[in-house]
Amino acid sequence: MAPPPDPNPHRRIGYLGPAGTFTEQALFTQADLASAELVALDSIPEVLAATADGRIDAGFVPIENAIEGTVTDTQDGLAFGVELIIQREVVIPVQLHLLGLPGTTVAGVTQVMSHPHALGQCRGFLERNLPDATLEATNSTADAARLVADVADPTTAAIATGRAAELYGLDLLATDIEDHPDNATRFVLVAPRLVAPPTGHDKTSVVIYQRADTPGSLLGILQEFAVRAVNLTRLESRPTRRGLGDYCFLVDLEGHISDDVVADALRSVKANQQDVKFLGSYPAAGETGPTRRAEVDAARQDANAWMDDLLGRVRD
Amino acid sequence: MAPPPDPNPHRRIGYLGPAGTFTEQALFTQADLASAELVALDSIPEVLAATADGRIDAGFVPIENAIEGTVTDTQDGLAFGVELIIQREVVIPVQLHLLGLPGTTVAGVTQVMSHPHALGQCRGFLERNLPDATLEATNSTADAARLVADVADPTTAAIATGRAAELYGLDLLATDIEDHPDNATRFVLVAPRLVAPPTGHDKTSVVIYQRADTPGSLLGILQEFAVRAVNLTRLESRPTRRGLGDYCFLVDLEGHISDDVVADALRSVKANQQDVKFLGSYPAAGETGPTRRAEVDAARQDANAWMDDLLGRVRD
Amino acid sequence: MAPPPDPNPHRRIGYLGPAGTFTEQALFTQADLASAELVALDSIPEVLAATADGRIDAGFVPIENAIEGTVTDTQDGLAFGVELIIQREVVIPVQLHLLGLPGTTVAGVTQVMSHPHALGQCRGFLERNLPDATLEATNSTADAARLVADVADPTTAAIATGRAAELYGLDLLATDIEDHPDNATRFVLVAPRLVAPPTGHDKTSVVIYQRADTPGSLLGILQEFAVRAVNLTRLESRPTRRGLGDYCFLVDLEGHISDDVVADALRSVKANQQDVKFLGSYPAAGETGPTRRAEVDAARQDANAWMDDLLGRVRD
Amino acid sequence: MAPPPDPNPHRRIGYLGPAGTFTEQALFTQADLASAELVALDSIPEVLAATADGRIDAGFVPIENAIEGTVTDTQDGLAFGVELIIQREVVIPVQLHLLGLPGTTVAGVTQVMSHPHALGQCRGFLERNLPDATLEATNSTADAARLVADVADPTTAAIATGRAAELYGLDLLATDIEDHPDNATRFVLVAPRLVAPPTGHDKTSVVIYQRADTPGSLLGILQEFAVRAVNLTRLESRPTRRGLGDYCFLVDLEGHISDDVVADALRSVKANQQDVKFLGSYPAAGETGPTRRAEVDAARQDANAWMDDLLGRVRD
Repeated sequence: MAPPPDPNPHRRIGYLGPAGTFTEQALFTQADLASAELVALDSIPEVLAATADGRIDAGFVPIENAIEGTVTDTQDGLAFGVELIIQREVVIPVQLHLLGLPGTTVAGVTQVMSHPHALGQCRGFLERNLPDATLEATNSTADAARLVADVADPTTAAIATGRAAELYGLDLLATDIEDHPDNATRFVLVAPRLVAPPTGHDKTSVVIYQRADTPGSLLGILQEFAVRAVNLTRLESRPTRRGLGDYCFLVDLEGHISDDVVADALRSVKANQQDVKFLGSYPAAGETGPTRRAEVDAARQDANAWMDDLLGRVRD
Repeated sequence: MAPPPDPNPHRRIGYLGPAGTFTEQALFTQADLASAELVALDSIPEVLAATADGRIDAGFVPIENAIEGTVTDTQDGLAFGVELIIQREVVIPVQLHLLGLPGTTVAGVTQVMSHPHALGQCRGFLERNLPDATLEATNSTADAARLVADVADPTTAAIATGRAAELYGLDLLATDIEDHPDNATRFVLVAPRLVAPPTGHDKTSVVIYQRADTPGSLLGILQEFAVRAVNLTRLESRPTRRGLGDYCFLVDLEGHISDDVVADALRSVKANQQDVKFLGSYPAAGETGPTRRAEVDAARQDANAWMDDLLGRVRD
Repeated sequence: MAPPPDPNPHRRIGYLGPAGTFTEQALFTQADLASAELVALDSIPEVLAATADGRIDAGFVPIENAIEGTVTDTQDGLAFGVELIIQREVVIPVQLHLLGLPGTTVAGVTQVMSHPHALGQCRGFLERNLPDATLEATNSTADAARLVADVADPTTAAIATGRAAELYGLDLLATDIEDHPDNATRFVLVAPRLVAPPTGHDKTSVVIYQRADTPGSLLGILQEFAVRAVNLTRLESRPTRRGLGDYCFLVDLEGHISDDVVADALRSVKANQQDVKFLGSYPAAGETGPTRRAEVDAARQDANAWMDDLLGRVRD
Repeated sequence: MAPPPDPNPHRRIGYLGPAGTFTEQALFTQADLASAELVALDSIPEVLAATADGRIDAGFVPIENAIEGTVTDTQDGLAFGVELIIQREVVIPVQLHLLGLPGTTVAGVTQVMSHPHALGQCRGFLERNLPDATLEATNSTADAARLVADVADPTTAAIATGRAAELYGLDLLATDIEDHPDNATRFVLVAPRLVAPPTGHDKTSVVIYQRADTPGSLLGILQEFAVRAVNLTRLESRPTRRGLGDYCFLVDLEGHISDDVVADALRSVKANQQDVKFLGSYPAAGETGPTRRAEVDAARQDANAWMDDLLGRVRD
């Protein structure tokens, strides 16, 4: 029943390209992933589809508060589209820089290119330093850098990553120009079917489809977790792509499905709600510890033993 | 579905005596118990102790809203004292009569004897019909009938059961004289260790010791049952005999511990609260059906299969 | 903070007699009540009825875990019968003694008289010291003392209070003979209509009639209190005297109806449940402090001011 | 205290431009707003800032699932930035068309321009019909139409609204090409301070900052609404722009703050949580009726009268 050990399960990884984006930068923070064969793809749906049909072994895409492309694509793709399991999450700080041809100065810039989200996240910097510059949308931050390099016009600059500066031979005219310096982006590695093993410090993501849009439905869902002391780290009601009025809930919770309390809670939600889609149990980014969970599990094991004894005493 | 043949597990049954009380009357409504060897004992603690140490095979005592003796003795005995399991519950209506020597009339009665609770439950009748009679406490309703028969004085009457009239050769001077004609008493059959098999229409009794007397502690307990759609039929916070401020909860719920949802809920409460004492799963008196439980169980089985599949996909 | 001067509102107080019971002893712990005209009445229903129709100004009766008479009479009388408001609660420890004629010794006792509850609470003492004595029920512990004095037989003893020994000239043959030395009894002073002023350390008692016997109904009730951080000190589901299956909840909670959060919670329960009967807000016995409530109230006042400002901004 | 009647409160309305976007199209569905002086502004933050400092009387911006620009700007601007009140919501279906110069055919198109979100929403159409076309990002859908008209190249098309086709003299090459034909966008009208009057069919939006990231915190918030039968139509946990781990909740609920139950719930949440920011009570788009609310309100009024009577009976 147990899958065999796999020394290198993800030999070929597709990611949201092009090279030089935050997604590639996040991928490079993971030594084992960085050493795989990396394939830059054009869009998040393409990464998800290629992973689902086996053209690549795993996909790497932004999922929350990202700069490149819309993360709704990832979230809705996993929730409503493909059958993929999140294997890992990676969180990196958002660091945006103003890039230009060597020799360019900030003062000389009259046009700034970037993905609309990146332009939006540097609005404060632009208003203070380049109030008269025209802003030009591009498909990604890396595309902006590429265009600046191609156009070879010192009055044009890009907002992009440090990696893009390297790739396209651009200078950093100004660094860390984003309005919210402690902003971060969360990425996920997805692959078919298999679930990552528990590490003692895991996260589980599910989509819960509610039985009906009645008061107390969500409350009932949350109680399932609260009574078992399972902490939620994210909750979002979301239209199910059938118009604005039909909701499901995207939920991230602390723990792994191989934890008794998590499995119990999900079994119970599955039984009581219309449906639950499991998106994965995987190591949580960051370093908070599993101490309390161990205590809870000890109490659960005592309780299981107690109930087993009682059940063994039921007369035939 | 039918309970399996039982080679008479309870050959010797102790009950709260003496003969002629409501307890004996309730015992006689159960054909299999009535055919056992019946032993009248002096007090509820004596019945419980004799059952616990094996002098008798089972004990039969009132537990809720009873006439004879204090039912706190049963409840607290099971909750805090002996280790016994409720095997069955029996509910009978409370019917109290005025009993006297043959030839006595109500108008001639100047003294009425009974257990103080029975006197209290007929207060309305006594005020209307015998406002000047003196009231005399006895240890049980049956004792009152015995005393009336012994004293042989036509101005003395007893409030007791029809069975006591038979036993002591007394007449029914007035029947059904209790103030609340739809009152009822609940009795339980208790025995060591074994749990009654599920019938599809069961009740489970537990005592839950809360972790601390904080707001929300009871709420947490109730949520365990509510999220699993387990209905409570009785709930009572109760001092744990260590003064007035230290509480536990006496809970009766619908279902048997061999129902998944009941076992799950109790496991979870056991793990999260200070302790749970199991008092028994047993056929519920009355006739409401198990239909909805079947639907719930089907949904649970689907959910269990879903989770089993997921757990089988966790990598080593 | 100090309760305002009260020109003796309760000049004539009825209590559950006879003299010499725990009820009288509890009454004597309250200086202002002890100086009123005290009237011993025969039963709890009589005390409640006399208070309701104005024959006495207030009634004093046991309500929880009492020795004399059944406390169900008090609880059900207040919940389902008369319209009276609890003005005060008094808690005293249960101390039972063995009383006999001067010169009697424990070893010489062959018959013990008392209220059945008192006999039950001293079962351990009786089994160890007087295993062969016959036990005789009386209407109250004080009645037992009176009978011992009347019969004047040195082989007969009573289980009763120290006050009864004084009243009837009996000796204390053995003191503090109850099995649970930290047992206590709670009494209440009841009067029509008016509610006791808040002292900062109060309790409120209500009866909540649930809308239907559905899972979650009680949960909904408790949430009303939990969301407002109102602590419950007692909760009991209870048949509404219309048979065993129709329940209401007896609830004691911390706080006074003049506390915003308590009033809000009760308004909301009243609106959402079938009915609520208010039994009183009154100073709590014991000494836990009102500190946290003050913080909560400050937060509520800020919230009220915030909402008032918002409501003032609604356009016509 | 009541604000004076205002016959035309919003004479000058700023909206997210340029002309020809969905935002303008939504604005035109509201006769009273369409007749105001309309000012197209460059970005959502600019609309919000201009409304807050009085340069315009009201602002009109997309808030949920929109095409033009990121709606995070609206949501986070209202939640964490400016002090503005939502006055109205407008929901219109998303209808995207392929626009080209007169005479252009779909088959001849080699480049498609639009806002990245619009390109994403038509991915299916593009893959089926124009798999080889290059995709070019623009700042808005209207900008794409403008660029197509400026460039005057029949191989270039825009994905934009019908209104943009009119504005820029373009043909509809293909209509309703979005992948999810029942998709819709929600817009809001915002203005300072004043709150829209209740209509009996309203919605209220708030941001709730939780006291701590503990299990049960959100549960407590939801209970406040559930116990008062206030239905939530949207709930989203959201980082408070101080990194990924610090959350607040964006909540839309049914009802107006001038409804007792809504005001009560918000008062209570405000008192118990770290903070609540009120974003507005306003007429709900769509046509579901207020019947049940009327019943609830009647029950509340009875409960209020009951509590007023009790409070009037508290002694001084």
